[in-house]
Amino acid sequence: MTERLEAQFAFLMEADRLKQVLRATSLADGSRRENSGEHSWHLALYAMVLADQAGPGVNIDRVIRMLILHDLVEIDAGDVPIHSANGAAHASPATAAAEAAAADRIFGLLPGDIGPPLRALWEEFEEAETPDAVFAKSLDRVQPVLHNIASGGGTWREYNVTYDQLQERVGQKVARGAPALWAFVQSRLGGYFGR
Amino acid sequence: MTERLEAQFAFLMEADRLKQVLRATSLADGSRRENSGEHSWHLALYAMVLADQAGPGVNIDRVIRMLILHDLVEIDAGDVPIHSANGAAHASPATAAAEAAAADRIFGLLPGDIGPPLRALWEEFEEAETPDAVFAKSLDRVQPVLHNIASGGGTWREYNVTYDQLQERVGQKVARGAPALWAFVQSRLGGYFGR
Repeated sequence: MTERLEAQFAFLMEADRLKQVLRATSLADGSRRENSGEHSWHLALYAMVLADQAGPGVNIDRVIRMLILHDLVEIDAGDVPIHSANGAAHASPATAAAEAAAADRIFGLLPGDIGPPLRALWEEFEEAETPDAVFAKSLDRVQPVLHNIASGGGTWREYNVTYDQLQERVGQKVARGAPALWAFVQSRLGGYFGR
Repeated sequence: MTERLEAQFAFLMEADRLKQVLRATSLADGSRRENSGEHSWHLALYAMVLADQAGPGVNIDRVIRMLILHDLVEIDAGDVPIHSANGAAHASPATAAAEAAAADRIFGLLPGDIGPPLRALWEEFEEAETPDAVFAKSLDRVQPVLHNIASGGGTWREYNVTYDQLQERVGQKVARGAPALWAFVQSRLGGYFGR
Protein backbone atom coordinates (compact mmCIF):
# COMPACT_ATOMS: atom_id res chain seq x y z
CA MET A 1 0.00 0.00 0.00
CA THR A 2 2.70 2.46 1.01
CA GLU A 3 4.84 1.61 -2.02
CA ARG A 4 1.82 1.98 -4.28
CA LEU A 5 0.93 5.42 -2.90
CA GLU A 6 4.57 6.47 -3.17
CA ALA A 7 4.45 5.65 -6.90
CA GLN A 8 1.14 7.44 -7.38
CA PHE A 9 2.44 10.58 -5.68
CA ALA A 10 5.78 10.45 -7.50
CA PHE A 11 3.80 10.63 -10.74
CA LEU A 12 1.53 13.44 -9.50
CA MET A 13 4.49 15.51 -8.29
CA GLU A 14 6.29 14.97 -11.60
CA ALA A 15 3.12 16.02 -13.44
CA ASP A 16 3.29 19.36 -11.59
CA ARG A 17 6.12 20.31 -13.96
CA LEU A 18 3.66 20.59 -16.86
CA LYS A 19 2.63 23.93 -15.30
CA GLN A 20 6.05 25.25 -16.31
CA VAL A 21 5.94 24.20 -19.96
CA LEU A 22 5.03 27.32 -21.92
CA ARG A 23 3.05 27.21 -25.16
CA ALA A 24 3.31 29.69 -28.03
CA THR A 25 -0.30 30.76 -27.44
CA SER A 26 -1.08 33.49 -24.94
CA LEU A 27 -4.00 33.76 -22.56
CA ALA A 28 -7.11 35.23 -24.18
CA ASP A 29 -6.23 38.72 -22.90
CA GLY A 30 -2.69 38.48 -24.28
CA SER A 31 -1.13 39.18 -20.87
CA ARG A 32 1.22 36.19 -20.82
CA ARG A 33 1.86 32.87 -22.50
CA GLU A 34 -0.29 29.91 -21.54
CA ASN A 35 1.23 26.85 -19.88
CA SER A 36 0.36 23.30 -20.84
CA GLY A 37 -1.20 22.47 -17.45
CA GLU A 38 -3.81 25.22 -17.53
CA HIS A 39 -4.30 24.60 -21.27
CA SER A 40 -5.18 20.97 -20.46
CA TRP A 41 -7.71 22.14 -17.87
CA HIS A 42 -9.27 24.56 -20.35
CA LEU A 43 -9.63 21.80 -22.96
CA ALA A 44 -11.35 19.49 -20.46
CA LEU A 45 -13.84 22.30 -19.89
CA TYR A 46 -14.21 22.69 -23.68
CA ALA A 47 -15.16 19.00 -23.87
CA MET A 48 -17.81 19.43 -21.16
CA VAL A 49 -19.32 22.53 -22.74
CA LEU A 50 -19.05 21.59 -26.43
CA ALA A 51 -20.15 17.97 -26.05
CA ASP A 52 -23.05 18.65 -28.43
CA GLN A 53 -20.49 19.19 -31.22
CA ALA A 54 -19.12 15.65 -30.93
CA GLY A 55 -19.92 13.08 -33.59
CA PRO A 56 -21.77 9.82 -32.99
CA GLY A 57 -20.10 7.32 -30.68
CA VAL A 58 -17.97 9.87 -28.84
CA ASN A 59 -17.64 9.24 -25.10
CA ILE A 60 -17.09 12.66 -23.53
CA ASP A 61 -15.73 11.25 -20.27
CA ARG A 62 -13.00 9.43 -22.21
CA VAL A 63 -12.32 12.63 -24.18
CA ILE A 64 -11.93 14.55 -20.90
CA ARG A 65 -9.47 11.98 -19.53
CA MET A 66 -7.55 12.04 -22.80
CA LEU A 67 -7.28 15.83 -22.74
CA ILE A 68 -6.09 15.83 -19.13
CA LEU A 69 -3.23 13.51 -20.16
CA HIS A 70 -2.53 14.66 -23.69
CA ASP A 71 0.37 17.04 -23.02
CA LEU A 72 2.18 15.25 -20.15
CA VAL A 73 4.96 14.11 -22.50
CA GLU A 74 5.89 17.79 -22.97
CA ILE A 75 7.52 17.68 -19.52
CA ASP A 76 10.43 15.94 -21.27
CA ALA A 77 9.82 16.63 -24.96
CA GLY A 78 8.65 20.26 -24.82
CA ASP A 79 5.87 21.92 -26.76
CA VAL A 80 6.19 22.21 -30.56
CA PRO A 81 4.15 25.25 -31.67
CA ILE A 82 2.02 24.31 -34.67
CA HIS A 83 2.93 27.47 -36.60
CA SER A 84 6.66 27.46 -35.74
CA ALA A 85 9.40 26.51 -38.22
CA ASN A 86 9.44 23.10 -36.55
CA GLY A 87 5.66 22.87 -36.56
CA ALA A 88 5.77 20.36 -39.38
CA ALA A 89 7.99 18.25 -37.11
CA HIS A 90 4.92 17.64 -34.97
CA ALA A 91 4.53 14.26 -36.61
CA SER A 92 8.22 13.77 -37.44
CA PRO A 93 9.94 10.54 -36.39
CA ALA A 94 12.29 12.46 -34.07
CA THR A 95 9.44 14.20 -32.24
CA ALA A 96 7.42 10.99 -32.06
CA ALA A 97 10.41 9.12 -30.62
CA ALA A 98 11.07 11.82 -28.01
CA GLU A 99 7.43 11.79 -26.97
CA ALA A 100 7.29 7.99 -26.78
CA ALA A 101 10.39 7.97 -24.54
CA ALA A 102 8.77 10.64 -22.38
CA ALA A 103 5.60 8.57 -22.13
CA ASP A 104 7.65 5.51 -21.12
CA ARG A 105 9.35 7.44 -18.35
CA ILE A 106 6.40 9.46 -17.05
CA PHE A 107 3.63 6.85 -17.15
CA GLY A 108 6.26 4.34 -16.00
CA LEU A 109 6.34 6.10 -12.62
CA LEU A 110 2.88 4.69 -11.89
CA PRO A 111 1.95 1.23 -10.54
CA GLY A 112 1.61 -1.43 -13.26
CA ASP A 113 -2.18 -1.48 -13.24
CA ILE A 114 -2.51 2.32 -13.64
CA GLY A 115 0.32 3.46 -15.93
CA PRO A 116 -0.23 1.28 -19.02
CA PRO A 117 -3.95 2.12 -19.50
CA LEU A 118 -3.14 5.83 -19.19
CA ARG A 119 -0.28 5.49 -21.66
CA ALA A 120 -2.66 3.69 -24.05
CA LEU A 121 -5.13 6.58 -23.76
CA TRP A 122 -2.34 9.04 -24.62
CA GLU A 123 -1.35 6.91 -27.64
CA GLU A 124 -4.95 6.81 -28.78
CA PHE A 125 -5.00 10.62 -28.69
CA GLU A 126 -1.74 10.84 -30.65
CA GLU A 127 -2.95 8.41 -33.32
CA ALA A 128 -6.13 10.47 -33.85
CA GLU A 129 -8.12 7.63 -35.34
CA THR A 130 -10.89 6.75 -32.89
CA PRO A 131 -13.95 9.06 -32.64
CA ASP A 132 -12.90 10.08 -29.11
CA ALA A 133 -9.38 11.01 -30.22
CA VAL A 134 -10.57 12.84 -33.34
CA PHE A 135 -12.90 15.00 -31.25
CA ALA A 136 -10.24 15.61 -28.60
CA LYS A 137 -7.82 16.77 -31.33
CA SER A 138 -10.46 19.15 -32.71
CA LEU A 139 -10.72 20.85 -29.34
CA ASP A 140 -6.93 20.98 -28.93
CA ARG A 141 -6.64 22.75 -32.29
CA VAL A 142 -9.57 25.13 -31.96
CA GLN A 143 -8.76 26.59 -28.53
CA PRO A 144 -5.68 28.62 -29.63
CA VAL A 145 -7.68 30.01 -32.57
CA LEU A 146 -10.09 31.62 -30.12
CA HIS A 147 -7.17 33.07 -28.14
CA ASN A 148 -5.58 34.44 -31.30
CA ILE A 149 -8.85 36.11 -32.30
CA ALA A 150 -9.29 37.56 -28.79
CA SER A 151 -5.71 38.82 -28.45
CA GLY A 152 -5.51 40.46 -31.88
CA GLY A 153 -3.57 37.94 -33.93
CA GLY A 154 -1.32 36.20 -31.41
CA THR A 155 0.76 33.41 -32.95
CA TRP A 156 -0.63 34.13 -36.44
CA ARG A 157 1.03 37.54 -36.36
CA GLU A 158 4.19 36.19 -34.69
CA TYR A 159 4.67 33.44 -37.29
CA ASN A 160 3.18 35.28 -40.30
CA VAL A 161 0.54 32.62 -40.81
CA THR A 162 -1.49 32.77 -44.02
CA TYR A 163 -5.13 31.80 -44.39
CA ASP A 164 -4.17 28.71 -46.39
CA GLN A 165 -1.71 27.64 -43.67
CA LEU A 166 -4.40 28.09 -41.01
CA GLN A 167 -6.77 25.92 -43.05
CA GLU A 168 -4.18 23.21 -43.53
CA ARG A 169 -2.65 23.12 -40.04
CA VAL A 170 -5.76 23.84 -38.01
CA GLY A 171 -9.00 24.06 -39.95
CA GLN A 172 -8.90 20.61 -41.52
CA LYS A 173 -8.21 19.01 -38.15
CA VAL A 174 -10.92 20.91 -36.30
CA ALA A 175 -13.42 20.23 -39.07
CA ARG A 176 -12.66 16.52 -39.03
CA GLY A 177 -14.01 16.11 -35.49
CA ALA A 178 -16.34 19.09 -35.23
CA PRO A 179 -17.34 20.55 -38.64
CA ALA A 180 -19.97 22.99 -37.36
CA LEU A 181 -17.47 24.29 -34.83
CA TRP A 182 -14.96 25.15 -37.52
CA ALA A 183 -17.61 26.80 -39.70
CA PHE A 184 -18.54 29.00 -36.73
CA VAL A 185 -14.95 29.90 -35.86
CA GLN A 186 -14.16 30.67 -39.49
CA SER A 187 -17.02 33.17 -39.55
CA ARG A 188 -15.37 34.89 -36.56
CA LEU A 189 -11.95 35.42 -38.13
CA GLY A 190 -12.99 38.97 -39.02
CA GLY A 191 -10.34 41.03 -40.72
CA TYR A 192 -7.48 38.61 -40.20
CA PHE A 193 -5.92 37.18 -43.34
CA GLY A 194 -7.42 40.07 -45.36
CA ARG A 195 -10.76 38.29 -45.84
CA MET B 1 -26.96 27.31 -33.72
CA THR B 2 -24.84 30.45 -34.05
CA GLU B 3 -26.36 32.01 -30.94
CA ARG B 4 -25.79 28.77 -29.01
CA LEU B 5 -22.12 28.57 -29.99
CA GLU B 6 -21.69 32.25 -29.16
CA ALA B 7 -22.91 31.51 -25.63
CA GLN B 8 -20.71 28.44 -25.29
CA PHE B 9 -17.62 30.37 -26.38
CA ALA B 10 -18.49 33.38 -24.22
CA PHE B 11 -18.38 31.02 -21.23
CA LEU B 12 -15.14 29.35 -22.34
CA MET B 13 -13.41 32.70 -22.88
CA GLU B 14 -14.62 33.93 -19.49
CA ALA B 15 -13.31 30.71 -17.90
CA ASP B 16 -9.85 31.62 -19.26
CA ARG B 17 -9.64 34.20 -16.45
CA LEU B 18 -9.33 31.43 -13.85
CA LYS B 19 -5.71 31.08 -15.05
CA GLN B 20 -5.07 34.49 -13.47
CA VAL B 21 -6.51 33.72 -10.04
CA LEU B 22 -3.53 32.99 -7.79
CA ARG B 23 -3.73 30.60 -4.87
CA ALA B 24 -1.68 30.79 -1.68
CA THR B 25 0.00 27.48 -2.52
CA SER B 26 3.12 27.44 -4.70
CA LEU B 27 4.10 24.95 -7.35
CA ALA B 28 5.83 21.87 -5.92
CA ASP B 29 9.28 23.39 -6.60
CA GLY B 30 8.31 26.64 -4.85
CA SER B 31 9.17 28.73 -7.93
CA ARG B 32 5.89 30.63 -8.10
CA ARG B 33 2.32 30.58 -6.84
CA GLU B 34 -0.12 28.20 -8.44
CA ASN B 35 -3.16 29.50 -10.31
CA SER B 36 -6.62 28.00 -9.96
CA GLY B 37 -6.79 26.83 -13.59
CA GLU B 38 -3.69 24.65 -13.46
CA HIS B 39 -4.68 23.56 -9.91
CA SER B 40 -8.01 22.30 -11.30
CA TRP B 41 -6.16 20.34 -13.99
CA HIS B 42 -3.85 18.81 -11.42
CA LEU B 43 -6.81 17.72 -9.28
CA ALA B 44 -8.51 16.05 -12.25
CA LEU B 45 -5.30 14.08 -12.72
CA TYR B 46 -5.31 13.25 -8.99
CA ALA B 47 -8.81 11.77 -9.41
CA MET B 48 -7.66 9.62 -12.34
CA VAL B 49 -4.56 8.34 -10.55
CA LEU B 50 -5.96 7.96 -7.02
CA ALA B 51 -9.30 6.44 -8.03
CA ASP B 52 -8.48 3.36 -5.93
CA GLN B 53 -8.67 5.56 -2.81
CA ALA B 54 -12.32 6.46 -3.41
CA GLY B 55 -15.03 4.94 -1.26
CA PRO B 56 -17.88 2.77 -2.53
CA GLY B 57 -20.31 4.38 -4.93
CA VAL B 58 -17.92 7.08 -6.13
CA ASN B 59 -18.14 7.83 -9.86
CA ILE B 60 -14.69 9.06 -10.86
CA ASP B 61 -15.89 10.65 -14.10
CA ARG B 62 -18.33 12.80 -12.12
CA VAL B 63 -15.53 13.64 -9.67
CA ILE B 64 -13.31 14.74 -12.57
CA ARG B 65 -16.06 16.98 -13.99
CA MET B 66 -16.69 18.42 -10.53
CA LEU B 67 -13.00 19.22 -10.04
CA ILE B 68 -12.75 20.89 -13.43
CA LEU B 69 -15.59 23.23 -12.42
CA HIS B 70 -15.01 23.59 -8.71
CA ASP B 71 -13.03 26.86 -8.67
CA LEU B 72 -14.72 28.78 -11.53
CA VAL B 73 -16.56 31.03 -9.05
CA GLU B 74 -13.14 32.37 -7.98
CA ILE B 75 -13.09 34.43 -11.18
CA ASP B 76 -15.47 36.80 -9.36
CA ALA B 77 -15.13 35.80 -5.70
CA GLY B 78 -11.37 35.17 -5.48
CA ASP B 79 -9.53 32.40 -3.68
CA VAL B 80 -9.75 32.23 0.13
CA PRO B 81 -6.58 30.49 1.41
CA ILE B 82 -7.54 27.85 3.95
CA HIS B 83 -4.82 28.91 6.40
CA SER B 84 -5.30 32.69 6.01
CA ALA B 85 -6.96 34.89 8.64
CA ASN B 86 -10.12 34.70 6.53
CA GLY B 87 -9.78 30.97 6.06
CA ALA B 88 -12.60 30.37 8.50
CA ALA B 89 -14.71 32.57 6.24
CA HIS B 90 -14.59 29.77 3.68
CA ALA B 91 -18.05 28.70 4.80
CA SER B 92 -19.19 32.14 5.99
CA PRO B 93 -22.51 33.52 4.69
CA ALA B 94 -20.68 36.39 2.96
CA THR B 95 -18.32 34.09 1.06
CA ALA B 96 -21.13 31.70 0.22
CA ALA B 97 -23.27 34.57 -1.11
CA ALA B 98 -20.40 35.95 -3.22
CA GLU B 99 -19.75 32.51 -4.68
CA ALA B 100 -23.43 31.89 -5.41
CA ALA B 101 -23.66 35.22 -7.23
CA ALA B 102 -20.52 34.31 -9.20
CA ALA B 103 -22.05 30.94 -10.10
CA ASP B 104 -25.24 32.67 -11.28
CA ARG B 105 -23.27 34.99 -13.54
CA ILE B 106 -20.69 32.54 -14.89
CA PHE B 107 -22.83 29.44 -15.47
CA GLY B 108 -25.56 31.84 -16.64
CA LEU B 109 -23.44 32.63 -19.71
CA LEU B 110 -24.21 29.15 -21.04
CA PRO B 111 -27.30 27.93 -22.95
CA GLY B 112 -30.17 26.87 -20.67
CA ASP B 113 -29.64 23.13 -21.16
CA ILE B 114 -25.91 23.29 -20.27
CA GLY B 115 -25.50 25.91 -17.54
CA PRO B 116 -27.93 24.64 -14.85
CA PRO B 117 -26.58 21.06 -14.71
CA LEU B 118 -23.03 22.41 -14.42
CA ARG B 119 -24.09 24.81 -11.69
CA ALA B 120 -25.77 21.91 -9.88
CA LEU B 121 -22.53 19.94 -10.06
CA TRP B 122 -20.64 22.89 -8.54
CA GLU B 123 -23.24 23.14 -5.75
CA GLU B 124 -22.92 19.44 -5.06
CA PHE B 125 -19.17 19.93 -4.63
CA GLU B 126 -19.69 22.87 -2.28
CA GLU B 127 -22.20 21.00 -0.13
CA ALA B 128 -19.75 18.10 0.27
CA GLU B 129 -22.41 15.53 1.12
CA THR B 130 -22.55 13.04 -1.76
CA PRO B 131 -19.80 10.39 -2.03
CA ASP B 132 -18.53 12.04 -5.24
CA ALA B 133 -18.29 15.48 -3.59
CA VAL B 134 -16.68 14.13 -0.42
CA PHE B 135 -13.96 12.42 -2.45
CA ALA B 136 -13.45 15.49 -4.67
CA LYS B 137 -13.02 17.64 -1.53
CA SER B 138 -10.44 15.18 -0.16
CA LEU B 139 -8.33 15.63 -3.27
CA ASP B 140 -8.73 19.42 -3.21
CA ARG B 141 -7.46 19.49 0.38
CA VAL B 142 -4.61 16.99 0.04
CA GLN B 143 -2.90 18.45 -3.04
CA PRO B 144 -1.52 21.61 -1.30
CA VAL B 145 -0.19 19.42 1.54
CA LEU B 146 2.06 17.63 -0.94
CA HIS B 147 3.26 20.98 -2.33
CA ASN B 148 3.98 22.28 1.16
CA ILE B 149 6.00 19.17 1.98
CA ALA B 150 7.91 19.43 -1.33
CA SER B 151 8.62 23.14 -1.06
CA GLY B 152 9.79 23.12 2.55
CA GLY B 153 6.77 24.37 4.47
CA GLY B 154 5.02 26.68 2.01
CA THR B 155 1.78 28.13 3.37
CA TRP B 156 2.29 26.39 6.76
CA ARG B 157 5.38 28.50 7.34
CA GLU B 158 3.75 31.63 5.88
CA TYR B 159 0.67 31.37 8.12
CA ASN B 160 2.35 29.74 11.17
CA VAL B 161 0.08 26.72 10.97
CA THR B 162 0.17 24.30 13.93
CA TYR B 163 -0.24 20.55 13.72
CA ASP B 164 -3.68 20.79 15.35
CA GLN B 165 -4.78 23.42 12.83
CA LEU B 166 -3.59 21.22 9.97
CA GLN B 167 -5.60 18.31 11.39
CA GLU B 168 -8.72 20.41 11.78
CA ARG B 169 -8.62 22.39 8.52
CA VAL B 170 -7.20 19.71 6.25
CA GLY B 171 -6.72 16.29 7.83
CA GLN B 172 -10.29 15.69 8.88
CA LYS B 173 -11.58 16.63 5.44
CA VAL B 174 -9.07 14.49 3.55
CA ALA B 175 -9.68 11.55 5.90
CA ARG B 176 -13.44 11.81 5.43
CA GLY B 177 -13.21 10.90 1.74
CA ALA B 178 -9.89 9.06 1.63
CA PRO B 179 -8.70 7.81 5.05
CA ALA B 180 -5.74 5.74 3.82
CA LEU B 181 -4.55 8.71 1.80
CA TRP B 182 -4.43 10.94 4.86
CA ALA B 183 -2.66 8.27 6.92
CA PHE B 184 0.00 8.07 4.20
CA VAL B 185 0.43 11.83 3.88
CA GLN B 186 0.63 12.20 7.66
CA SER B 187 3.52 9.74 7.71
CA ARG B 188 5.33 12.01 5.21
CA LEU B 189 5.10 15.23 7.23
CA GLY B 190 8.65 14.60 8.47
CA GLY B 191 10.04 17.25 10.78
CA TYR B 192 7.27 19.80 10.26
CA PHE B 193 5.26 20.68 13.33
CA GLY B 194 8.10 19.32 15.51
CA ARG B 195 6.84 15.75 15.36
